[in-house]
Amino acid sequence: MTQDSTPSGYEPLTVESIPARLKEIAAITERLGRDSSQWQAREVGDGNLNLVFIVTGPGGSVIVKQALPYVRLVGDSWPLPLKRAFFEYHALTRQAARDPGMVPEVYHFDAVQGLIVMQFYTPHVILRQSLMAGVRHDGLARAMGLFCARTLFRGSDLSMDTSQRKADLALFADNVELCDITENLVFSDPYFDAEMNHHTSPQLDDIVARMRRDIDLKVAAQEMKAKFCNNAETLLHGDLHTGSIMVTADETRVIDPEFATYGPIGFDIGMLLANFFMAYYAQPGHAETTGARADYQEWILDVVAGIWRTFEAEFSRLWRQERTGILFERTLFEDQGDGLGAEQALGRRLNAIWQDTLGFAGVEIIRRTLSLAHIAENDSIEDANLRGKCERHGLLLGRQLLVNRETFAGLDAMLDLARTIEQGEMG
Amino acid sequence: MTQDSTPSGYEPLTVESIPARLKEIAAITERLGRDSSQWQAREVGDGNLNLVFIVTGPGGSVIVKQALPYVRLVGDSWPLPLKRAFFEYHALTRQAARDPGMVPEVYHFDAVQGLIVMQFYTPHVILRQSLMAGVRHDGLARAMGLFCARTLFRGSDLSMDTSQRKADLALFADNVELCDITENLVFSDPYFDAEMNHHTSPQLDDIVARMRRDIDLKVAAQEMKAKFCNNAETLLHGDLHTGSIMVTADETRVIDPEFATYGPIGFDIGMLLANFFMAYYAQPGHAETTGARADYQEWILDVVAGIWRTFEAEFSRLWRQERTGILFERTLFEDQGDGLGAEQALGRRLNAIWQDTLGFAGVEIIRRTLSLAHIAENDSIEDANLRGKCERHGLLLGRQLLVNRETFAGLDAMLDLARTIEQGEMG
Repeated sequence: MTQDSTPSGYEPLTVESIPARLKEIAAITERLGRDSSQWQAREVGDGNLNLVFIVTGPGGSVIVKQALPYVRLVGDSWPLPLKRAFFEYHALTRQAARDPGMVPEVYHFDAVQGLIVMQFYTPHVILRQSLMAGVRHDGLARAMGLFCARTLFRGSDLSMDTSQRKADLALFADNVELCDITENLVFSDPYFDAEMNHHTSPQLDDIVARMRRDIDLKVAAQEMKAKFCNNAETLLHGDLHTGSIMVTADETRVIDPEFATYGPIGFDIGMLLANFFMAYYAQPGHAETTGARADYQEWILDVVAGIWRTFEAEFSRLWRQERTGILFERTLFEDQGDGLGAEQALGRRLNAIWQDTLGFAGVEIIRRTLSLAHIAENDSIEDANLRGKCERHGLLLGRQLLVNRETFAGLDAMLDLARTIEQGEMG
Repeated sequence: MTQDSTPSGYEPLTVESIPARLKEIAAITERLGRDSSQWQAREVGDGNLNLVFIVTGPGGSVIVKQALPYVRLVGDSWPLPLKRAFFEYHALTRQAARDPGMVPEVYHFDAVQGLIVMQFYTPHVILRQSLMAGVRHDGLARAMGLFCARTLFRGSDLSMDTSQRKADLALFADNVELCDITENLVFSDPYFDAEMNHHTSPQLDDIVARMRRDIDLKVAAQEMKAKFCNNAETLLHGDLHTGSIMVTADETRVIDPEFATYGPIGFDIGMLLANFFMAYYAQPGHAETTGARADYQEWILDVVAGIWRTFEAEFSRLWRQERTGILFERTLFEDQGDGLGAEQALGRRLNAIWQDTLGFAGVEIIRRTLSLAHIAENDSIEDANLRGKCERHGLLLGRQLLVNRETFAGLDAMLDLARTIEQGEMG
């Protein structure tokens, strides 16, 4: 595969061309039925990068996701190679092995077309929509805590055969262009007047100016960038926000890992928690009456707490039961009767992951408010004064988490700080 | 190249076969002369892994280094792929670009034969021999401090184009077998009763038993292993001890980077300083009369101090003048009139490198005393009681550097501790 330019033969699908173009693929006809004249396709891509179709036939439905050779959100002035589908495909197969049932089953992959045919989740909705509508989902925190612990532990040198991990590291090291998006949009653009930035103005102008003069903040953000770029601890989802999660009343699933790369364990968890914090602060912009979302806000904080606590418990369980990799080998600890040493190392490791989680959470909140890609929870608040207030709360929390990540007291202190910022005038 | 098994056509060179087998290689005949009947080869490999020949002809001399398909030190029971020559070749070309003149020029590389023909340094000797003989070398500390700063800074995301760095990361990620040696022999074997371990016994039995029960020490060693395995900050030499340095009275050169891999900046520096500390403690075993090496010991500590100070100064200079990579971009700092932010980040970065340096130095001293490969300075002390005393001093220092790396006061405190251990009975 020529990964740096669009291969000859590549052609974007349309709802009209899908039946003719996909009718020979057994993995699809098995599920939809062989008579492609009865198939119906509709385009549902609401993301920033790709074409996404639901294709339905007499036998069922599948998702057809096709990469475009540019960033959909921006247009063909921003080229982006099709090989991101290759990385999504490989990430999906690894996640499926590490936390079975949590990601769509892949039916077919076509590198030339940048095409993945995969399981259609129904009646699932994107979690971000629920967070705007004030809808609760049972088991969400537990499912996401388990997903993070299992995928992140089992993709690391704590678990994997190291030669296999190194081969995977080399494979995903080629996902350069999508990492480049993260490196720029997440870690650098928010901290200066970058071309694609936008923020609620003039309401946030003062805090934005202050943040761009804030040495401690800028240094901290770059330290997190260095960790993201260099600390290849595990295979990340790479874009684990609430738009990458699909839910029913009691099911949780994870999609869209095309930003997959090797990076620090805290990155996925931090990005995930950040998106819940932003949803928390956006609630006044969606409340039917003043205060009507107060209980729902507490539910969101419960989800944050539940994700971290589940992550911590499951990571600890895996540490004790599945630590088969080259790091912190049982040979040196349990096999010497030194279970305490293994527990000490676990505690220190969890503390380091916690610090990274806070740092990445702060970075994510700030970039989703000041950089190119914002969140629907805020964008859909029409009153700019109200929107600015919600966003300001997020920025205040994000700055505190990021700059003070190394000395933060713990989970309860984080939730208290989130509430205190929501309730008061903090700057 | 089939990198995981010995290719057909591979055949180890001998002093007899060298003229016939290499006479067609222009890069060699240019330097030795075309009449290969006048060439003379002698085998000088004193390392643990490879064949090394000096081949001399009427026109000059070259080094011919050939990988064996096993570990020379152990024999064919320990296979090791020839591709290590591939990584040495690529590391040499990168080091030559990053600190010109400090590594041998490569004249010819043959992947099938695992063969590198390169510049012969004469009248240079291996630094480790000088450290046993009590010989001083002008400019050593400065050259090594500069080498570390330049190769480590310029191979990182602080300097390189990031897509090129990621391609390099992927290339060197395949150096699995040599990393495996480091991962096992350096970071794990010393901390349990591993098969290939040996130590001066019974003189060190008590401290060895104590160290293997030392939870803080074992956890710290594994934390450094995790950094080595996961923190792909820059292209390392990977084996930067005093046997990889060649010197004259006033010239310093670096050889043998076949362990090259992406890893933490502090790894090379820490390993280097550790080898000077061990040479420091070994001096009583080589002194002509009691105390005769006291001044030389202080010279060794001056070299340690000089390496770190030069590294720090040159790294800072490069940070200020060549920070062209994606980390801590000038766009966010100097270009905003915020030079202070860039200096703050530099200070924090140097502090983090210092902590890693201490940790890796401690790990290196311990493994060179308890694991498979020891150092000639100690091995050549025939009196086991005296040897054990020298080695014990190293172990005491190594444990302190490693366990207390995060809270260590600084360079002077490190040198004072080294002296205090040398002078007293510490355990």
